[in-house]
Amino acid sequence: MDRIRVGIVGGTGYGGMELVRLLLDHPAAEIACLVSRSEAGRRVDAVFPHLRGRIEQTFQGPDDADLAACDLVFFATPNGVAMHQVPGLLASGVRIIDLAADFRLRDPAAWTQWYGEAHACPELLADAIYGLPELDRDAIRSARLVANPGCYPTAVILALLPLLRAGLAGPGALIADAKSGASGAGRGAVVGNLLTELSENFRAYRVAGHRHLPEIRQALDRLAGQARELVFVPHVVPMIRGIHATCYAEVDAGIDLQAVYEDAYAGEPFVDVLAPGEHPETRSVRGANLCRIAVHRPPQTGRVVVLSVIDNLVKGAAGQAVQNMNLMFGLPETSGLTSLPIAP
Amino acid sequence: MDRIRVGIVGGTGYGGMELVRLLLDHPAAEIACLVSRSEAGRRVDAVFPHLRGRIEQTFQGPDDADLAACDLVFFATPNGVAMHQVPGLLASGVRIIDLAADFRLRDPAAWTQWYGEAHACPELLADAIYGLPELDRDAIRSARLVANPGCYPTAVILALLPLLRAGLAGPGALIADAKSGASGAGRGAVVGNLLTELSENFRAYRVAGHRHLPEIRQALDRLAGQARELVFVPHVVPMIRGIHATCYAEVDAGIDLQAVYEDAYAGEPFVDVLAPGEHPETRSVRGANLCRIAVHRPPQTGRVVVLSVIDNLVKGAAGQAVQNMNLMFGLPETSGLTSLPIAP
Amino acid sequence: MDRIRVGIVGGTGYGGMELVRLLLDHPAAEIACLVSRSEAGRRVDAVFPHLRGRIEQTFQGPDDADLAACDLVFFATPNGVAMHQVPGLLASGVRIIDLAADFRLRDPAAWTQWYGEAHACPELLADAIYGLPELDRDAIRSARLVANPGCYPTAVILALLPLLRAGLAGPGALIADAKSGASGAGRGAVVGNLLTELSENFRAYRVAGHRHLPEIRQALDRLAGQARELVFVPHVVPMIRGIHATCYAEVDAGIDLQAVYEDAYAGEPFVDVLAPGEHPETRSVRGANLCRIAVHRPPQTGRVVVLSVIDNLVKGAAGQAVQNMNLMFGLPETSGLTSLPIAP
Amino acid sequence: MDRIRVGIVGGTGYGGMELVRLLLDHPAAEIACLVSRSEAGRRVDAVFPHLRGRIEQTFQGPDDADLAACDLVFFATPNGVAMHQVPGLLASGVRIIDLAADFRLRDPAAWTQWYGEAHACPELLADAIYGLPELDRDAIRSARLVANPGCYPTAVILALLPLLRAGLAGPGALIADAKSGASGAGRGAVVGNLLTELSENFRAYRVAGHRHLPEIRQALDRLAGQARELVFVPHVVPMIRGIHATCYAEVDAGIDLQAVYEDAYAGEPFVDVLAPGEHPETRSVRGANLCRIAVHRPPQTGRVVVLSVIDNLVKGAAGQAVQNMNLMFGLPETSGLTSLPIAP
Repeated sequence: MDRIRVGIVGGTGYGGMELVRLLLDHPAAEIACLVSRSEAGRRVDAVFPHLRGRIEQTFQGPDDADLAACDLVFFATPNGVAMHQVPGLLASGVRIIDLAADFRLRDPAAWTQWYGEAHACPELLADAIYGLPELDRDAIRSARLVANPGCYPTAVILALLPLLRAGLAGPGALIADAKSGASGAGRGAVVGNLLTELSENFRAYRVAGHRHLPEIRQALDRLAGQARELVFVPHVVPMIRGIHATCYAEVDAGIDLQAVYEDAYAGEPFVDVLAPGEHPETRSVRGANLCRIAVHRPPQTGRVVVLSVIDNLVKGAAGQAVQNMNLMFGLPETSGLTSLPIAP
Repeated sequence: MDRIRVGIVGGTGYGGMELVRLLLDHPAAEIACLVSRSEAGRRVDAVFPHLRGRIEQTFQGPDDADLAACDLVFFATPNGVAMHQVPGLLASGVRIIDLAADFRLRDPAAWTQWYGEAHACPELLADAIYGLPELDRDAIRSARLVANPGCYPTAVILALLPLLRAGLAGPGALIADAKSGASGAGRGAVVGNLLTELSENFRAYRVAGHRHLPEIRQALDRLAGQARELVFVPHVVPMIRGIHATCYAEVDAGIDLQAVYEDAYAGEPFVDVLAPGEHPETRSVRGANLCRIAVHRPPQTGRVVVLSVIDNLVKGAAGQAVQNMNLMFGLPETSGLTSLPIAP
Repeated sequence: MDRIRVGIVGGTGYGGMELVRLLLDHPAAEIACLVSRSEAGRRVDAVFPHLRGRIEQTFQGPDDADLAACDLVFFATPNGVAMHQVPGLLASGVRIIDLAADFRLRDPAAWTQWYGEAHACPELLADAIYGLPELDRDAIRSARLVANPGCYPTAVILALLPLLRAGLAGPGALIADAKSGASGAGRGAVVGNLLTELSENFRAYRVAGHRHLPEIRQALDRLAGQARELVFVPHVVPMIRGIHATCYAEVDAGIDLQAVYEDAYAGEPFVDVLAPGEHPETRSVRGANLCRIAVHRPPQTGRVVVLSVIDNLVKGAAGQAVQNMNLMFGLPETSGLTSLPIAP
Repeated sequence: MDRIRVGIVGGTGYGGMELVRLLLDHPAAEIACLVSRSEAGRRVDAVFPHLRGRIEQTFQGPDDADLAACDLVFFATPNGVAMHQVPGLLASGVRIIDLAADFRLRDPAAWTQWYGEAHACPELLADAIYGLPELDRDAIRSARLVANPGCYPTAVILALLPLLRAGLAGPGALIADAKSGASGAGRGAVVGNLLTELSENFRAYRVAGHRHLPEIRQALDRLAGQARELVFVPHVVPMIRGIHATCYAEVDAGIDLQAVYEDAYAGEPFVDVLAPGEHPETRSVRGANLCRIAVHRPPQTGRVVVLSVIDNLVKGAAGQAVQNMNLMFGLPETSGLTSLPIAP
């Protein structure tokens, strides 16, 4: 089979960098063009010296790249960019995976509320498939347009999916206390993300409402079949990669939740349910397209505590995007995604 | 006034180190003796080079130090050590502040359950005062034996105190999702605490039951006037100092919680309630005897989220111990505790 | 005595923040005004939440502050700002300590070469005193204008001063291999200084010529009484605070260098020569106005290796500035500079 | 071709962990047995949770493993262990790669001096090949016993090899100022290697003589054809992986060193000479079997500064061991070693 010709728009953020890393080792895809407005004309390995010797290409400006000649275009751009280019590319027959938020919310009013502008192509929202394979694998296979999930939503939804799908969560609020490494905030020049500001420091942020909240709620409500009360509190951890979600829900005492989770994820190549009593650590998935989950029931409480970890740049972004590509093009789902986590 | 003559037993852990730092700058106390079994005979500044030029003393072995001649002895020893020495010292008229857990739980059976051995002097438990000044200031003033609170309990109890004291927490479980820097685990030689194991990593631990759980529950139940369901999940953050507690409770919609918190802590020298919408960060209290708290009510939920931060070695250990000493000896409560946090 | 009324221009960088921290605890100085172009009108503790409860002031714009009414003005501005304001303030009788580079090089041509523009007041360069007390204490006492040394120069000059003053360095090149924490690069929004770029990473930079090179060379040549060949290589360490200089020089075998260093720094309140065989660590000076030095002679070589550590924001910037203020105003040299290093 | 059956002795240190990671993805090798005295009987993925789902094996005790049935045995044991087992295995026809120091020094007296005991099989030292392919590729191909180089020696020797081989280094001392991440110190439970001790800290160590000094000197003297004065100063960086060597030598002004280095390493698959003026960073090789080098000539000096970076666990240990295995077994030298560095 010919290699899939892929384009990457927004190749200089961390999501784009990670896509390049994964695709350079992918057995069935080739990077046809890399688009960056800010770095157009520079060699990719001048911007990213860790790629020296592995890539000869040059970043192209948005008007120079022949994206329409690609089989698939990944958007790793800031929110609100892809929606302006996607309709034209779809019309050219190109399939799309958007790593940003442009196509994640089905309700255009919600998009406006959380992203502060009208959606440029609301008519496409109903066609976009939310690209969480464990939730909607078959729809992804035939999708033209995949909305790749956010990093927090991936960790939280995978933590709660078996519980909600089985209708086992009690009526109280679902709580998702989530912690992310700094790469989740992107590669922008922001004082608050300097090493001197983040290192030896820990804090919550956006408790009043993070943009991933409506995305998580949309997925959980769909799984639950009803609107659920959800509290989502993100925090930033002084490390580069990794998300840890600690999720709380009411449950009845008698249910064997370990079995529920193991059954729900049996056969899933990228979700690992740990043995009872274990605690996943973010480094156990560093660099790999994996989510590891542990299910705890603290004694003397009526709660379940579900712990889940992902690498926010892999299963939370670029790795999941490649997984979606594999599904869309009929490849083995694990193609190019088998490298081992790096520890220590 | 003569300076208070203090002894420190267990001067080589992080709690002991921090006590030495604070007491060397204290205007009304002097370190009469420093006891360390492992470092007996070595100069303190050979073990802790950051103290060179500021201390001439030598660690003494447990049998060599004249602790009975001290006005006050701090125990910064591992759990289960102080309880063997405290009765004799009390009999000699020495007052005691124990930074370990030996006198924190009022129920000797709970001590046995959580610490794996019988308590050596259960008859003293009823006399020991739990040394959280914001909870029990007057009792501390006259105490002979103060049980200095644990680091997690300090952060969690201060976060929930105004809510519970005012009877404003709804019936659902209280959830304390807490995150600690690595110094909370002490200075023992443990593989799991190596930089290579903790750095670029995040994980929960002891979800099934951490030793601080019964301590927190004892205080919260006392504040609430009834037994409360409590879920406590600790996590380790790749940094040295700092605890961040994220606490969740049910509350009615109409209550002005900001005012409740500001009123509860008005006049408290070491608790700072942030303005609405702010998020405390651990570095804002690094090195200082402070707890900063923010109160959030996420939209569309019936929950309050209380965020609190402390430096686990200061307000969570040695600083609070000095605060207790100040109260016990009739000094201004802030004596020796006014140095500013260090940021960045 | 009345308190010294000080102004700080450029209060929002790390040097300015650290000045505020030190001056708030200084027994004989008070901050009369804080100038920040970017934060004018905001409360200081809104910008720096770690100062909440300790400062009531608001940043003023450059035109609003009455700097001329101060006894002393600190400039903690980017290079090239102070030189435009200093002549006027001096004319008003205000004394100046500039933490930037504007008055460090005596040769205006060198300033132009390294800073890329003509000097605004070259006539003042001859009057400016290089504010390294261990080098030039008496001149500082009577100075109107003090050029506070750079962070690398402080660490390197103190490491080599005894050797060069005693004429003990052989003819080969002096090598200064220096390592700095990230706060040395300032608080600017620069991609290269993000936690995600600096953490888990180490690199040299500006090997072809760092702006501190001519400053170091000027001081070393003056000490040596001749031009010396100097290689200076800076590196960035994934930490916030601290500089470690590893300096190499040729020396004759027979000299007791330990005695030379101990004699040279006997009586210096802020320089500590470690015992033979020891290695200073940056955390042993964190937050404190100290330089610790160790002298090594590796076997089978004709070289000395001098290791020196400082906190770049304290002895390498704000602390040294306060030390200079103390000298200029006849205060005890250690006033406000006695707080202990913070470890861990 | 049948897969190479390899055994790993000492699988629970960082070198062993990294060998497992690389060999699990190697196309022509299989792990036949994993030996650990401390973890015998435990599943590998219970000790290393990041390997869950990828390895089914159990650690064997030293007496239970059939190492003699392997084609190749890697020793990733502490120094002084392999030398007791190697003679027997060689007699059984097994080939050996020792990642420890047992066979690196050709002079048994030097081994005794630096490692504090007599060598157990000094007669093998002359046969052992020093496994730095860039130095001695052909000898490695036919070796029975390969002494895998130390991490610092790999970085320093590759930095100076072209200079010394071409006879271009002047007579002055060679200086190697080297900086290592904490994984270089191993996975032992040592207080000094706790996160709380190493993080936010930087220091030199063993300036009087590190065990890698004789190893480096042996290789450099061989390249130079004469004994060279060498100063080697190691430092520990608060990060997990990576070594940065900053090397200094005298050179004549007229030589085009960039060309010398590019020529010397032309065709080397794992050494990358950067463009003039660039500075390698350790993260550019993280997780990959690469050494990146830059050559600088600071203006107004007669010195060259060579900067080299490796991942100490890959090109400085396990990756180089696999590279040696590939050479010994006639495989493509890059087999199993093509995964990309991970950044950020």
